[in-house]
Amino acid sequence: MKLLVTGGAGFLGSLLVRTLLARGSLAGARIERLVVSDLAPPPADLLADGRVEARSGPLLPACAALGKERFDGVFHLASAVSAECEADFDLGLRSNLDTTRALLDALRAAGNAPRLVFASSAAVFGGDPPGLPLPAVVRDDTLPLPQTSYGTQKFVSEQLIADFTRKGFLDGRAVRLLTVTVRPGKPNGAASGFLSGIIREPLAGLATVCPVALDAEVALASPQRTIAAFLAAYEASRERYAGRTALNLPALSVRVGEMLDALETVAGPRVRALVQLAPDPKIERILHTWPARFDARRAAALGLSPDPDFLGIVRQYLRDHPEAVKVQTAS
Amino acid sequence: MKLLVTGGAGFLGSLLVRTLLARGSLAGARIERLVVSDLAPPPADLLADGRVEARSGPLLPACAALGKERFDGVFHLASAVSAECEADFDLGLRSNLDTTRALLDALRAAGNAPRLVFASSAAVFGGDPPGLPLPAVVRDDTLPLPQTSYGTQKFVSEQLIADFTRKGFLDGRAVRLLTVTVRPGKPNGAASGFLSGIIREPLAGLATVCPVALDAEVALASPQRTIAAFLAAYEASRERYAGRTALNLPALSVRVGEMLDALETVAGPRVRALVQLAPDPKIERILHTWPARFDARRAAALGLSPDPDFLGIVRQYLRDHPEAVKVQTAS
Repeated sequence: MKLLVTGGAGFLGSLLVRTLLARGSLAGARIERLVVSDLAPPPADLLADGRVEARSGPLLPACAALGKERFDGVFHLASAVSAECEADFDLGLRSNLDTTRALLDALRAAGNAPRLVFASSAAVFGGDPPGLPLPAVVRDDTLPLPQTSYGTQKFVSEQLIADFTRKGFLDGRAVRLLTVTVRPGKPNGAASGFLSGIIREPLAGLATVCPVALDAEVALASPQRTIAAFLAAYEASRERYAGRTALNLPALSVRVGEMLDALETVAGPRVRALVQLAPDPKIERILHTWPARFDARRAAALGLSPDPDFLGIVRQYLRDHPEAVKVQTAS
Repeated sequence: MKLLVTGGAGFLGSLLVRTLLARGSLAGARIERLVVSDLAPPPADLLADGRVEARSGPLLPACAALGKERFDGVFHLASAVSAECEADFDLGLRSNLDTTRALLDALRAAGNAPRLVFASSAAVFGGDPPGLPLPAVVRDDTLPLPQTSYGTQKFVSEQLIADFTRKGFLDGRAVRLLTVTVRPGKPNGAASGFLSGIIREPLAGLATVCPVALDAEVALASPQRTIAAFLAAYEASRERYAGRTALNLPALSVRVGEMLDALETVAGPRVRALVQLAPDPKIERILHTWPARFDARRAAALGLSPDPDFLGIVRQYLRDHPEAVKVQTAS
């Protein structure tokens, strides 16, 4: 089979590609070619795999040609991030809406109704106070009321994918990703960035700031569980997927203070002390529009479960990114 | 003030334009110019009004120029109808999605943040059985799960309007129209067409078919109440409108048998006998995906109420379209 992964050179994208290559097959078919589309080239280990073909550059103008390759399956992860979309409205519309539309049009034109997994986001939620506040627990039938351009564009893309699917032009499944932590690499300036930073930076021996109160509750997923959700969404039969609307994922709901407790458990109080509490009302306001608790029954029926605890997420990071850990840890 | 009404030559559009001209003002400002955009030219009585300017032809290529006119307010009613969008997917995307997007882009470029009322539709609902069926009563926070391209395109347009509004590019208000009955004119082949036809045709002395069982329940609004909703949505302050998400309208929920009873009340049993019952499983299936009951609290808070009964709707038709009534009636 021939797969396309858009955004395949990013953190989640390259982890997905790496996982697919290691498995060797998907939904019972052998992976023969895997096209990685992204602005940047993929990491060297992926490029070294004979099945991988890189297409570097903007996705929008490449969609029509990609469609002609008649992929069996597509993972569509390419996206401008939340903060970028708030800062540059046109960039968001182009990257997250026009590009998705062009990709759908191209896949439809291919005529082979490929399977498509779309990386949507729990950022579709947000509530529209005072009349329609965010409920305490987000359920499968909770009305998304996006409060960001990013959330709006993801939600709109979900709708288009559902209708292209209803018409039989493709077999689309949208999954709403949670905040993925612990992300490796540099701080990226996203409002949610600190949810990786408060673990990653101290483990690298660096001081960092926690911009929200310790009792702030957040909904998280580890990179591994997130990749598992992509694969489960792809491999589910249409019947088991149960509907065409986007899938909320099971979340680990945890307080920021508990995250720091887990850091202390693996690295001690001196490493935890590298995190300075400096509440930022702007970040706290944004955080308040994010759902902290999910009742994700559809996802549970697909066999997906939340990370059991945050300590396990920290240990996943220690195991997967030993090169980034500069302090002594008891894992 | 300078207003634009897209789709302003259609049945609802021309009724809206006529109402605006008769009022002479909107939200406290005098209406000085009213541009009517539609594929067809507006009715003669509208054209005869010195304030009206007709722009006939497709809206999509006209959007950029319209934006430059810096309207104070826009009513965006232009739309391909449900059946057309199912039959011609590209037509629906172009007419209902690309055109709305082009209009929003043009209004944003104008830079004066005009007020915009968008004619969305209760067709955004539909349920996604078996996991997410349509609830018995649709509330303000019910999740739309469109089951048609038309419903999808309306719902997507709502989202874009909400985000353009959040960003301050315009002041948008989307209202979800119910099935409007009794529509004058010819049968239009829409799945909901019979909900006007079973009254209009017998009153014209013509035989017609009712394709659903008498106990089928439907949610309706008269033309007058629908126009009242457009005006209330326009004139509400941003605070009273309470949020940016689309507004469900108060519905008269009625069984098809009760509609025919009302016909009999005004025109007698021989006129009612012109309606032949011939259930069509295809139409019944579509009807089953339409919400029949609404709990529209936000709309009620804006002072909007449902038509009190269907007899009143029939009498509204007799009063407004005497030329179309060819049988004897006791109104």
